[in-house]
Amino acid sequence: MSIPDRAADAVAALTLDQKAALTSGADFWTTTQAGDVPSVMLTDGPHGLRKQRRSADHLGLHDSVPATCFPPAVALGASFDPELVERVGVALGIESAIEDVAVLLGPGINIKRSPLCGRNFEYFSEDPVVSGVIGAAWVRGVQSQGVGTSLKHFAANNQETDRLRVSSDVDPRTLREIYLRGFQRVVADARPWTVMCSYNRINGVHASEDPWLLTSVLRDEWGFDGLVVSDWGAVRDRVAALAAGLDLDMPSSDGRADAEVVAAVKEGRIDERLVDRSAARVASMAMRAAGRAPVTAPLDVDAHHALAREAAGRSIVLLKNSDGVLPLSRDARIAVVGAFAEHPRFQGAGSSLINPTRLDDALTHIRAAAGPDVAFAPGFSLESTADESTRVRLRAEAVAAAAGADVAVLFLGLPAPTESEGFDRTGIDLPADQLALLDEVRGANPRTVVVLSHGGVVALPFAGDVPGILDGSLLGQAGGAATADVLFGDVDPSARLTETVPVRIEDTPAFGNFPGEYGHVRYGEGLLVGYRWYDTRDLPVTFPFGHGLSYTTFDWSGASATVAGNGDVDVRVTVTNTGDRTGREVVQVYTGLEDSAVSRPVRELKAFGVVELAPRESREVALTVRRSDLAYWDVRVDAWIVEGGRYRIDVAASSRDLRGTVEVDLDGDEVDLPIARDSSLAEVFAHPVAADALRAALARHGGGGIAGSGDEDVRMMLASFPLGRMSMFGLPGAAIDEVVVAANR
Amino acid sequence: MSIPDRAADAVAALTLDQKAALTSGADFWTTTQAGDVPSVMLTDGPHGLRKQRRSADHLGLHDSVPATCFPPAVALGASFDPELVERVGVALGIESAIEDVAVLLGPGINIKRSPLCGRNFEYFSEDPVVSGVIGAAWVRGVQSQGVGTSLKHFAANNQETDRLRVSSDVDPRTLREIYLRGFQRVVADARPWTVMCSYNRINGVHASEDPWLLTSVLRDEWGFDGLVVSDWGAVRDRVAALAAGLDLDMPSSDGRADAEVVAAVKEGRIDERLVDRSAARVASMAMRAAGRAPVTAPLDVDAHHALAREAAGRSIVLLKNSDGVLPLSRDARIAVVGAFAEHPRFQGAGSSLINPTRLDDALTHIRAAAGPDVAFAPGFSLESTADESTRVRLRAEAVAAAAGADVAVLFLGLPAPTESEGFDRTGIDLPADQLALLDEVRGANPRTVVVLSHGGVVALPFAGDVPGILDGSLLGQAGGAATADVLFGDVDPSARLTETVPVRIEDTPAFGNFPGEYGHVRYGEGLLVGYRWYDTRDLPVTFPFGHGLSYTTFDWSGASATVAGNGDVDVRVTVTNTGDRTGREVVQVYTGLEDSAVSRPVRELKAFGVVELAPRESREVALTVRRSDLAYWDVRVDAWIVEGGRYRIDVAASSRDLRGTVEVDLDGDEVDLPIARDSSLAEVFAHPVAADALRAALARHGGGGIAGSGDEDVRMMLASFPLGRMSMFGLPGAAIDEVVVAANR
Repeated sequence: MSIPDRAADAVAALTLDQKAALTSGADFWTTTQAGDVPSVMLTDGPHGLRKQRRSADHLGLHDSVPATCFPPAVALGASFDPELVERVGVALGIESAIEDVAVLLGPGINIKRSPLCGRNFEYFSEDPVVSGVIGAAWVRGVQSQGVGTSLKHFAANNQETDRLRVSSDVDPRTLREIYLRGFQRVVADARPWTVMCSYNRINGVHASEDPWLLTSVLRDEWGFDGLVVSDWGAVRDRVAALAAGLDLDMPSSDGRADAEVVAAVKEGRIDERLVDRSAARVASMAMRAAGRAPVTAPLDVDAHHALAREAAGRSIVLLKNSDGVLPLSRDARIAVVGAFAEHPRFQGAGSSLINPTRLDDALTHIRAAAGPDVAFAPGFSLESTADESTRVRLRAEAVAAAAGADVAVLFLGLPAPTESEGFDRTGIDLPADQLALLDEVRGANPRTVVVLSHGGVVALPFAGDVPGILDGSLLGQAGGAATADVLFGDVDPSARLTETVPVRIEDTPAFGNFPGEYGHVRYGEGLLVGYRWYDTRDLPVTFPFGHGLSYTTFDWSGASATVAGNGDVDVRVTVTNTGDRTGREVVQVYTGLEDSAVSRPVRELKAFGVVELAPRESREVALTVRRSDLAYWDVRVDAWIVEGGRYRIDVAASSRDLRGTVEVDLDGDEVDLPIARDSSLAEVFAHPVAADALRAALARHGGGGIAGSGDEDVRMMLASFPLGRMSMFGLPGAAIDEVVVAANR
Repeated sequence: MSIPDRAADAVAALTLDQKAALTSGADFWTTTQAGDVPSVMLTDGPHGLRKQRRSADHLGLHDSVPATCFPPAVALGASFDPELVERVGVALGIESAIEDVAVLLGPGINIKRSPLCGRNFEYFSEDPVVSGVIGAAWVRGVQSQGVGTSLKHFAANNQETDRLRVSSDVDPRTLREIYLRGFQRVVADARPWTVMCSYNRINGVHASEDPWLLTSVLRDEWGFDGLVVSDWGAVRDRVAALAAGLDLDMPSSDGRADAEVVAAVKEGRIDERLVDRSAARVASMAMRAAGRAPVTAPLDVDAHHALAREAAGRSIVLLKNSDGVLPLSRDARIAVVGAFAEHPRFQGAGSSLINPTRLDDALTHIRAAAGPDVAFAPGFSLESTADESTRVRLRAEAVAAAAGADVAVLFLGLPAPTESEGFDRTGIDLPADQLALLDEVRGANPRTVVVLSHGGVVALPFAGDVPGILDGSLLGQAGGAATADVLFGDVDPSARLTETVPVRIEDTPAFGNFPGEYGHVRYGEGLLVGYRWYDTRDLPVTFPFGHGLSYTTFDWSGASATVAGNGDVDVRVTVTNTGDRTGREVVQVYTGLEDSAVSRPVRELKAFGVVELAPRESREVALTVRRSDLAYWDVRVDAWIVEGGRYRIDVAASSRDLRGTVEVDLDGDEVDLPIARDSSLAEVFAHPVAADALRAALARHGGGGIAGSGDEDVRMMLASFPLGRMSMFGLPGAAIDEVVVAANR
């Protein structure tokens, strides 16, 4: 018997009280046991397992079982590599299974709408295809181990400010194409066990109470057949949430929510079948988890740490490398500067805080590679209480160390307290004392390489002033070792920016519209999120989306695109490693349509892939642009529509580094829009039958000179007049109706 | 007996059919006669009278009685001078009265949201205070002659594309503070006889059918007691429109609309009193107009032309003047280049097209001033059919003329077909052949002065390359003479930009959000319209809002601001003419509030005034910033609220040329927001009573560590949690209720 059938049977044997109890937590982390339905545990993550040790501490921010802290989403996404991400997912699944966890609460795939969102470190990208592809790989990996995932936070949860009340006011096309597209892809491609409903409202409706979101879109349109769980505390009205399709209310409300559900059923306000349905989904999930073979082998800490190191190395973006400053020679006199080299910033704060099994710092690993003579100076203090004399002394020591070296490696970043789940940042600048330190260090030694640690994007006003920049974002517990790997060239940097580095906060798309006020945030930039904004508005950026260098060089040639039988577009390009090191190139495919009926970003990522090449090796990379990803959301018919036309396909190394452009002609989807009284004259005259009928009617009723005349200015002025309003020019209502009937005959 | 009482009596004597007939037009331009209610005429304008001669031509774009074509709104607004505008209004009123016109359909005060709007030439500004103050002056002037006005297009009608269907999707605060503020001011200050409802929808509701707009806001809140007339053809559902508060449906629908109204009353779908109410308003307007003493004196064409010339001269903005290139010497060898010097572009196209009594061209008046030896070459053809050899020849002649002169005056502009009511522009560039001509002319003669003619703003990429630029926009029938007046210094240029000149279309606020698609346009930039956008985002502009030079120079000193007893802010600054010519300075007052609870533009215009000063004359200019103009629209309480705090007052010559900054402390309005279950913990802890009650409850029920603890990261994470959601941390619902009760006791 299938699990859903067993779950249905188990639920059928329960009382209403028991069924209602199944639809909410037993405590902070576990579901309720009832009849044959076992209680199972859900835990935070997602870049590691955060299984709380003391259940009394509800938030449990600090005390959880040790687990491997893999690179958080901000870093992992930059690998652009679903294969790697899936392997990390497998490891996370194993750790969850060892700890008997049913569902690991991730991945977070919300779009990075503004660099100020305090939780951006938990999300992959400003682009929905990156978020969706990487998120799906993560889900596949975890679930391959019989552990469930929770696709979160569904949906349009792109800020922390006022996050339990704020309404994301976003138009339907933007919602579909930017904010839901990644969710849709993960649901379709990887079938997550659960989806986590977000705290916020969307266009005034609480996500937890939105039947359109949780049922019409998620289940009816996308075919999701799993469980919808609330974000912890997201439910405001349990009965409304249940009716909307929210199955599991977490955490426990000590029976209050269950009692409300029971009362609503008894009073006839909701159908008991709603309770049955959600209870059965909880039961399915629990039975599925409980049916997993127990894992008795202990955690292989070393193997997972090694994977964390590999993943971290693959997540470091080489933003700049001039004058051959990188990779470092082991024989060079190296000065390491910056407190983060000794005390790594390796993860974000909030519900995702992992208690790592181990922690590598970069300084140790740089010295391991280049010897104990590597100089070190912290340069700045991570204590906000440090006084001015301390600061001056730290800076002087750092300058002295840098001056005496062949190369200075300067670790800068955002101090941990400046970003977290729960609140947003107010700016994108690095701390002033670090920028001052940078100026002094590079004054003392122009061969300065900056290594960055940060969750959200930071402005890099010094990008033109230093020869090397490595962007490590947040690399997890092995990030220190991985940074050394990349610095010395043991690992070739192959990550790419999943988020544009803007010049100024004033240039960012949501500036002035973030984080909103008094319960509303206007998604005013519409589709123009991230590089879609910078590229369409042709704004300067410090580093574009998709950018990242390698220690080797690549040549691209022979881009081509053909339409496959199923309508997908097959894109090919040959990449050759022209350098003398093995390296990985990330091939990005962007599309555009110039003469579109709808406004479009100049360029949108539709596919990407990684290719590893030995020196002088050449390979053809084949990528598929799904026809469905070329569709826009057509608000006239509330459906995805592929517009016919000649699409531009840019094969590129970043959104601003196009290596080849080809075109394909696509047939469009049919959109059947009947002529009606509200049709404009332009639409009527574009419709052969309607046009003839209208001309005849005008001739009969003396609307002479109005339409079809050679009078261009009159024609232009009237083009937008609805057919039905032609009565003002003397056309009788019956004649208008005849035109409509004729057109739709 | 008052007119409203007489109107009510007249309507009371009518049948339902007659009353219904009163609420729609008798034909294209006149209202219906019924009982004692006379038929009166409404006509287009507004920068002149467009009284159609042949009623058979419904649009009547071409054939109207001759009337003085004053500068259209785009120019007149630039005078920044309500006194001048009011005098133009008086003249318009006289011309209307002579022609027995009851209502002149203007002013158009819609905000210039995008430079692409095809009808921007009919509007005053990107700023609502400029639009409101200038619009009110215009209404006062016209109505002083017993002629009514129609404040249009109400509301949020900021584009021509799809104008009869498109929904302006705009949030309530933006709608109030930007798009309605000017209308509110004109209604309050000048009491227009009528308001014209616009074609478009607002947030999905047709303006013509919107009871919130036409009744709640316009009448109940603002106290409007006049007539609401439809834009011609704006009514889609006559019964819904009547119910919403649309009194007069224009033009005639040959009885169809009236029959619908009668049927709706008879079937009980609407109350007959709705018909009575609107019929009485039509009757009031008609009786008021009919009661005006007939004007028998003929139009004084010369006097009105002279006023048109004065107004045009006062509407020319001197954008740039270096190397003393202006004013021109009458003795200089002058080359005039550009077809517009001979064939002026002086008004826009569409319903506002005036048949002028006379038409001055600049060339004639320049020759009148400097003699017949002034050289002229058209430089380019206004016929789009001109072939390349013609273009080359025209350009060569122009270069030859310029090369042989001391100074070249180059007339550039937008050809008439490129902008009109009825469609929007697609770019802001001048025609390529004109830009090419400019390059050649200034190559031949660096002392080149550019004179611009255009309705919508044009990009000026050459602003750094020529010593002089005069912006004439559209100057009306006497613009040619006025241009000569300013060129030779007979009139000192004193107009200022009412609209920012952006560097590129990509920099404009609505780029990507204009003109929308499929029936919706997103007002995504929110409050950041015009200079509010450029200044808040700190973007480069070619010329800022408010900019304009004089031939003399001014010194500003002693700025001060004090709060008056009624809460208004009295701002003073002393302006001294430090040059040797009489001139006018425009004093602009901007305000800002740095630490506001709501997001605000960095700087907003709140008052302005013109001062004329003889050489070395000094005068204190006193301006009032109304307290009501400092209010923001608070969506929590749906009301205008003045926030308490220290306001920055910038006394300025443009939005980017601040001549003095002072501060005033203002007491805020009370906003009473009770503590509720949805209040955030931050709000609860900011409320002394609620905070104590919550702390006590937590102590009783063991929510230890959650709130009030020293754990900063927990506190930050939980700040946005609603009080009602504290049950997830073990606080019983009853305890939460007690906190709410205690807080509001």
